[in-house]
Amino acid sequence: MTAAEVPVGPRPDPATLDNARRALSDLLGADRVHTGDDDLAQHGRDESFHPAARPDVVVWPRSTEEAAAIVGVAAAHRVPVVPFGAGTSLEGHVAALAGGLSVDMREMNAIGRPSIEDLDVSVEAGVTRRALDARLRPEGVFFSVDPGADATIGGMIATGASGTTTVRYGAMRENVISITFVDAHGQVIRTHSRARKSSAGYDLTRLMIGSEGTLGLICEATLRLHPTPEAIAAAQSTFPSLEAAVQCVVMVSQHAIPVARIELADELQIQAINRHNQTAFTVAPTLFIEFHGGSAAEVEAQARDTAELAAECGGSDFAWASDEAERRRLWHARHGAMEATRAMRAGSGALTTDVCVPVSTLADCISATQADIAEHGLMASIVGHVGDGNYHVIVLVDPGDAAEVARGEEFHARLVRRALEREGTCTGEHGVGYGKARFLVEEHGRPAVEMMRAIKRALDPDGIFNPGKGAGAASL
Amino acid sequence: MTAAEVPVGPRPDPATLDNARRALSDLLGADRVHTGDDDLAQHGRDESFHPAARPDVVVWPRSTEEAAAIVGVAAAHRVPVVPFGAGTSLEGHVAALAGGLSVDMREMNAIGRPSIEDLDVSVEAGVTRRALDARLRPEGVFFSVDPGADATIGGMIATGASGTTTVRYGAMRENVISITFVDAHGQVIRTHSRARKSSAGYDLTRLMIGSEGTLGLICEATLRLHPTPEAIAAAQSTFPSLEAAVQCVVMVSQHAIPVARIELADELQIQAINRHNQTAFTVAPTLFIEFHGGSAAEVEAQARDTAELAAECGGSDFAWASDEAERRRLWHARHGAMEATRAMRAGSGALTTDVCVPVSTLADCISATQADIAEHGLMASIVGHVGDGNYHVIVLVDPGDAAEVARGEEFHARLVRRALEREGTCTGEHGVGYGKARFLVEEHGRPAVEMMRAIKRALDPDGIFNPGKGAGAASL
Repeated sequence: MTAAEVPVGPRPDPATLDNARRALSDLLGADRVHTGDDDLAQHGRDESFHPAARPDVVVWPRSTEEAAAIVGVAAAHRVPVVPFGAGTSLEGHVAALAGGLSVDMREMNAIGRPSIEDLDVSVEAGVTRRALDARLRPEGVFFSVDPGADATIGGMIATGASGTTTVRYGAMRENVISITFVDAHGQVIRTHSRARKSSAGYDLTRLMIGSEGTLGLICEATLRLHPTPEAIAAAQSTFPSLEAAVQCVVMVSQHAIPVARIELADELQIQAINRHNQTAFTVAPTLFIEFHGGSAAEVEAQARDTAELAAECGGSDFAWASDEAERRRLWHARHGAMEATRAMRAGSGALTTDVCVPVSTLADCISATQADIAEHGLMASIVGHVGDGNYHVIVLVDPGDAAEVARGEEFHARLVRRALEREGTCTGEHGVGYGKARFLVEEHGRPAVEMMRAIKRALDPDGIFNPGKGAGAASL
Repeated sequence: MTAAEVPVGPRPDPATLDNARRALSDLLGADRVHTGDDDLAQHGRDESFHPAARPDVVVWPRSTEEAAAIVGVAAAHRVPVVPFGAGTSLEGHVAALAGGLSVDMREMNAIGRPSIEDLDVSVEAGVTRRALDARLRPEGVFFSVDPGADATIGGMIATGASGTTTVRYGAMRENVISITFVDAHGQVIRTHSRARKSSAGYDLTRLMIGSEGTLGLICEATLRLHPTPEAIAAAQSTFPSLEAAVQCVVMVSQHAIPVARIELADELQIQAINRHNQTAFTVAPTLFIEFHGGSAAEVEAQARDTAELAAECGGSDFAWASDEAERRRLWHARHGAMEATRAMRAGSGALTTDVCVPVSTLADCISATQADIAEHGLMASIVGHVGDGNYHVIVLVDPGDAAEVARGEEFHARLVRRALEREGTCTGEHGVGYGKARFLVEEHGRPAVEMMRAIKRALDPDGIFNPGKGAGAASL
C-alpha cells in the first residue's frame, strides 16, 4: 500500500505549523525544536517496505510533564502527534502521513530501581530492550519479552510486541502492569496501580497495548519481571518436513513441557543463516528450542523429554547445549534471520510480514505459503514462533522492479487471507500500522471495526494521534 | 452504599415497559417473558451485602441470535439490559438499579468440542465452571481459572475473575482468547480470531473482560486450556506470624517455584474452617499450597524446595499429600472459607470484599487490617491469593444492627484506602459493581475515569447496559 492510498486528513497549513512551532519553542527553547532535513527524513521511516512520510517537526521530550505540554500544544493547534521509538516497526507506524510532530522518546530513558520482592520495574518509554536487560542482569531478574529488534519499551507496548519467549512467558499484554500516557487533552493518565491484578474499571492498560500511537503518547510503564532461571539450555533438531516439525511443537505443548522458546526456520532460512553466519546447520526444517529451569537436572529432563517427542516425529540431529557461548551462537543465528535473508540478494528490500493461526492449521498454512512463494517466483524465507502459531515471511523484493513489487504485494494479500480462512489473524505481533489496516474489516467484521473507530473518536476527537494508522484508520 | 445513592437514570415508564414486553412476547412467545414475583426477586440479588433491586422482566435467550434480538428490542425502547449468570457476584452487579430487563444466560450452556491440538474450547456464556470442568476432565485438559464459586463463564469474563490458580496460570485476562457479544445496537461482535495472539486493532477482548455488563451482552467465548498435570500434590504449613507466611510466598516467587496455588488463611479463618468442617488444623496463619508437575519427582522437588523456604521463614508442620482424597479435603476446606466464616455467627450477613496490593506491602497491609478489625469491634476473617497480593476480608455484620453496619462500612472504606496508599487497587477480582464505583477516581485519578466514561458513552450512548455499575457510573 502506498502512502497516497491511505485515508488521512490534510496536513496542517503553514500558518498553523508556524504557530505550533513557536509555541514549542516557547516551551522547550528554539534549539530543541528540530526541523533539519536529516531529522525529518530519519523520523518518517521505519524498517518496513512501506513508503516513508516526513514529519514537519521533531521534538525529544525529557519527562512525562514535558511530553504532556507538547501534546497540549499539538492539541491546541490540531497538529498530528506521531510517537517515535527505535524506528524498528514493520508496518509504517512512524510515517507522518499527515505531517505534524514526531515525538522521539529516546531521551526518556530512565530505569527505576527494580523491586525484587514484587518482581517489577518502572521505566520510561524510550528505554530499549537491551539497555533494560543490561540494567536487570546483575539483579538476577529479567524482562521476558524479546521481539528480536532492540526496540524501545514504548514501541513494544504500542505494537503489542511479543516474540520468541511468548510461548512460556506471554507477550507485552501479559507483562505490562501499568502504563502512563498523555491523552488527547494533554492530561497524564496512569492506567493501573502496581498491584499484580485488578478488576477496578475498564482495562486501559490493554487498550493502550497494541494501540499503535493512536490513542495517546506512552511515556512510562511498570513491567513484570521474572527471576533469571538457574539453568538454561538450548537445543536444535532437524525434521524431514514442516509438518513433522510442527507436529513436534504440538506434542511439546500437549505434554506441558515448559519450553522457553521454540522457533521454526525453513530450508531457505537455514541456507541464509549458514551463508550469513558461516554456520553449517543441516538444510532442513529446523526447530531451535530453549529450556529454562531451576536446576541443571530440570532442564536436562525437559531436553530429554523433548528429544523423545522430536524423535517420534522423525526429528534427527537433536543436539543440546547448556554452555552459554554455544547457546548465544545459536540464538544469534536465529535472531539475525531477517538480516541473513536480506543478505541473500544485495540491493533487495525486504517485505517482512507476519500472521498467526491456530497451531493445528500451522503446518498446512506454512506449506501452502511455500507453494505460493514458488508460484509467485519470489525469494522468501519463513521463521516462526511456532508455539504460538505465529510465523514471519521475509520476501526479497527489488524496489526498482515494479512487477516483482506487485507480485510481492499479491502474495502478501493471499498470505493474510489464508490465515483469516483458518481462523487466524492478519498480524500476530507487528500491528497493522498503515500497511495492514485494510484487512481489519475482513478479520473482525464491520461492527467490531466500527466499535474500534468509535473508541478512537471518543478518545481522540480531533484525530491528532498518529493519523492514518491502526483501527482508527480502517476503512469500512 | 445503598441503591438510592447510586446515580442512575430513571426507570422506564410503564408505557415503554409495556411496549418492550409486547415486542419481547412477539419475539420469544409470551410464555418466555417472565414477570413473576419469584423470578424478579431472584434476579435482582447477588451474594453481596448490597441492596437488591428487581428488574421488570426476565428473559432466557437460547442463542446468540436471540440475545441480539433481545438487545435490539431493549435498544429500540431504551430499556436497561442487566446480564445475569449464576448470581455469585459480590458487588451488586445484577441489581437492576433502573429496572428493565434481566437477561439470564443459563440456557446458553453449550460446550463445543475442545481442541486438544490448539488447547482451546468454545463455550456459551451460561456454562458454569463446574460443568465445563466435568466436560473437559475426560479429555485430559482443564480450564484453569478458579474463583471458588460455581460462576458462569460469562460472569467470570464480566467481572475479570481470577482466583486461586492465577499465581501460575493467570486470570481471565490471560485465559480468554475471544469473546462474542452483542453491542448496544444489537449487533454481534467477535473480538478476536482463534489465534493465540494478535496485534490487529484494539484489544476488544480485554476491554470486555472486567466490563461488568456495561459495554455489551457477553454470549460466547473461546477459552485457553491447559493439559491436566500428570502429578498434583497439596501441602500446608503454619507460621508464627502473617509476616512470616507472606515472606515465604515472596521467597517462593523469587525462586521461581511454579506453585499452582498458594493461599493464606488467618487464625480466625482457620478456626472457622475447623468448626465448619470438623478439621483440626493448627490455629495459626496458614499457607495452603498446590503443586502441578509432569511427574511425581517434579512435584516432589517443588514441595521439597518450598518446605525448605517455609522452614527458613519459621514455618512448621509442613505436610504434603499427593493422595487425591486428602488433596480434595484440603481444598474443600479452603474453598468453603466464606461459608465457614458465615457459620460462625448465625443470622449474620457477610460483607465480603477484596483488595490487591504489591506483595512487598502485603504483610503490613494484612496486619493493619487485623488491627482495624479489632478496633472496629468486628468479627472478620482473612483469606488471600497471596501470590498475587490479593486478599479477601469476610466481615460478619448483623443487617438489623445499624451501628454494626456503619462500623462495617467504615472499616471497608479504610481497607480500600489502605490498599490505595500502598499502590494497590480497590478490587483484585470482584469488580466494582455499584459497591465500589465511588473509589475509582481515588484509585485511577479523574482523567482516567473520564476516559472510561468516554468509552462507555461512545459504545453505549443510551446507557442501556447495566446502568449504575462500573466505570460508566463512577461519579467525578
